[in-house]
Amino acid sequence: MAQSQAKATSAAETAEISMAGWSGPRRLTLPALALDSGATLAPVEVAYETWGSLAPTRDNVALLCHALTGDAHACDLAHPDDPRAGWWNPLVGSGRVFDTDRYFVVCVNTLGSCYGSSGPASQCVDLATGQQTRWGLDFPPITVGDIVRAQRATLAALGAERLAVVAGGSLGGLQALEWAIAYPELVARAIVIGAAQRLPAQGLAIDDIARQVIMADPRWQGGAYAPGEGPAIGLGLARMLAMLTYTSAAGLEARFGRGLATQPSDWPAWGPRRDVETYLHHQADKLARRFDANSYLYLSSAMDRYDAAEAWGSDEAALGRIRAETLVVGMSTDWLYPPELARGLAEGIVGVGGSARYAEINSLDGHDAFLKEWRQMDAALRPFLNGQG
Amino acid sequence: MAQSQAKATSAAETAEISMAGWSGPRRLTLPALALDSGATLAPVEVAYETWGSLAPTRDNVALLCHALTGDAHACDLAHPDDPRAGWWNPLVGSGRVFDTDRYFVVCVNTLGSCYGSSGPASQCVDLATGQQTRWGLDFPPITVGDIVRAQRATLAALGAERLAVVAGGSLGGLQALEWAIAYPELVARAIVIGAAQRLPAQGLAIDDIARQVIMADPRWQGGAYAPGEGPAIGLGLARMLAMLTYTSAAGLEARFGRGLATQPSDWPAWGPRRDVETYLHHQADKLARRFDANSYLYLSSAMDRYDAAEAWGSDEAALGRIRAETLVVGMSTDWLYPPELARGLAEGIVGVGGSARYAEINSLDGHDAFLKEWRQMDAALRPFLNGQG
Repeated sequence: MAQSQAKATSAAETAEISMAGWSGPRRLTLPALALDSGATLAPVEVAYETWGSLAPTRDNVALLCHALTGDAHACDLAHPDDPRAGWWNPLVGSGRVFDTDRYFVVCVNTLGSCYGSSGPASQCVDLATGQQTRWGLDFPPITVGDIVRAQRATLAALGAERLAVVAGGSLGGLQALEWAIAYPELVARAIVIGAAQRLPAQGLAIDDIARQVIMADPRWQGGAYAPGEGPAIGLGLARMLAMLTYTSAAGLEARFGRGLATQPSDWPAWGPRRDVETYLHHQADKLARRFDANSYLYLSSAMDRYDAAEAWGSDEAALGRIRAETLVVGMSTDWLYPPELARGLAEGIVGVGGSARYAEINSLDGHDAFLKEWRQMDAALRPFLNGQG
Repeated sequence: MAQSQAKATSAAETAEISMAGWSGPRRLTLPALALDSGATLAPVEVAYETWGSLAPTRDNVALLCHALTGDAHACDLAHPDDPRAGWWNPLVGSGRVFDTDRYFVVCVNTLGSCYGSSGPASQCVDLATGQQTRWGLDFPPITVGDIVRAQRATLAALGAERLAVVAGGSLGGLQALEWAIAYPELVARAIVIGAAQRLPAQGLAIDDIARQVIMADPRWQGGAYAPGEGPAIGLGLARMLAMLTYTSAAGLEARFGRGLATQPSDWPAWGPRRDVETYLHHQADKLARRFDANSYLYLSSAMDRYDAAEAWGSDEAALGRIRAETLVVGMSTDWLYPPELARGLAEGIVGVGGSARYAEINSLDGHDAFLKEWRQMDAALRPFLNGQG
């Protein structure tokens, strides 16, 4: 959605935007990337966008890490007042939290995604036949560590290796945390939102069910579906399930209750169509049209497998590596990473001598509050970035 | 499961049990039942079991209402110490909460189920061909009111129309509530557990997703699958989703955490198999083997459509009809009918001049706590039935 809007930008507008500091959609090719699995991916395509300018001192980089189905278009300077035009639009721009007059803002499409960076939907060469084909399930399993490593290589290629701040929510929050742990010397500030050291059992269970639902769709075909012929029903159902975990019981009740939709149900024997169903089906259709099912499987499992302590032996050892000033933001009605876990992450960093604070977004929007509660997000992030509060 | 154990009981044991007051599995045929949809179902098969004896005064009936995938085997006198042999085994028997020395305990398999009462898996006559066939989706939609009406007709046939107590949890709790509202003159005491006047939006959403998952399985075939060839994968996935709503985040975390299963994953690219996944897959397999997918669709939608106020115009009008002493039991970690809704039901009854009290089961077992927390259930129900507390 954000991508197509970006593409729809006219040439005249693009020139104007570029003057305001937007790079436009960019791609680069990394020669190779060593993965946690032991495999090497070569070459690696990376899609990214930047806003603002890299300072001569190269110390003003703000890396924004997107969530599972997001893309590199964090901000849309052509539509600065549309919160949906870029996924963090209200937080990025001149005078905004991620101030493009101050920061060189970078957003890299996640490895494994389908928005320009290498992933299971990308073309590759079949070694047996020499033909171009799609990776599908032959794409190697990836980790949050791999995603971060691809970002680091991308930033190095841009001459921007040190981060004034890395920030992200959900899967992006795990990336921000992993940056701070894996590369403590490179990260001055980290903002970890709707995330913790690892996903609890309930989230693991929901994600497993969602993956099973995708793979149960006969159109999935073991991941070997042709472009545009993927498991739209299964992916849509997985999205409906995920959307539930991105909102909250109270939020759904306040917004939809048991309200009846005007459109009749496809299955009247099961009762009238309700507003909450219409909402979920709409979300399902939207995602099934824009996202690759295999990318969903790779990235949701990367989220599940992430454990901050894994490479270092314990939470204490992992969190003890962090040198960044860290802000952890929890959402009051977050199912996936409940606020007590986000708070626990901040306390864990402080407990091993690090510098961390915790802020909580009060919202009925659950896990997705970091993409909706703009005023509270601004209030939590701005003082932290200004070294106050 | 409970049924097969009942069937496995030897002839000698059966005689002994019968002496102790168990009817054994029984069936009767009602000539016809007028349904809320306006359709008439004729004839109607009903499976039921009874324990204890009907008093000459016919005022000692305890009707137990089972949950969505339950059956009439509430109690197993042959295995009184096995809590799984009958779904309320620890609560039924001589000296137990539903004391078979005092009560004539009756449990009727729900209309629409697949455990002996008429439902979509039952045989019917194809009016066009005169051949025996399975109802499938030609079975009429049913409501909680219809389920209760079938129970009432069954009890009338047993000469046991007045209820000393009606009790049930989840879908059974809706039935107990509906009994008290629809037939106030027949119900002396009602025990409504894990239920409320209606299901909130989040439960509606989850149930809708579960039904879509079943119907997306190609083996569902529009409900026209042959016996034993139903949508096992879809039904299993629906069960996994439902099981999540029957437990709680804290319960899953305490029991499974991120523990790794010994069995390898079918999809190692998505990570190792975890204990919580093994648990859910086991539950999925069990239900897919024992339950009919169409019954699941009919009964889950009956739960969703239930609204206590619907026939009476408002909660006040509906609850104002109740003459029963009512006990509402909420479960502290219930997702589907959160405890504040159960408490609200009790308060609503009191608010219109009725007699109701509220008890809460403190448990990590979520919605399913009424099938697990035997000591707390006993402590909540026993004094109520004895007119104390």
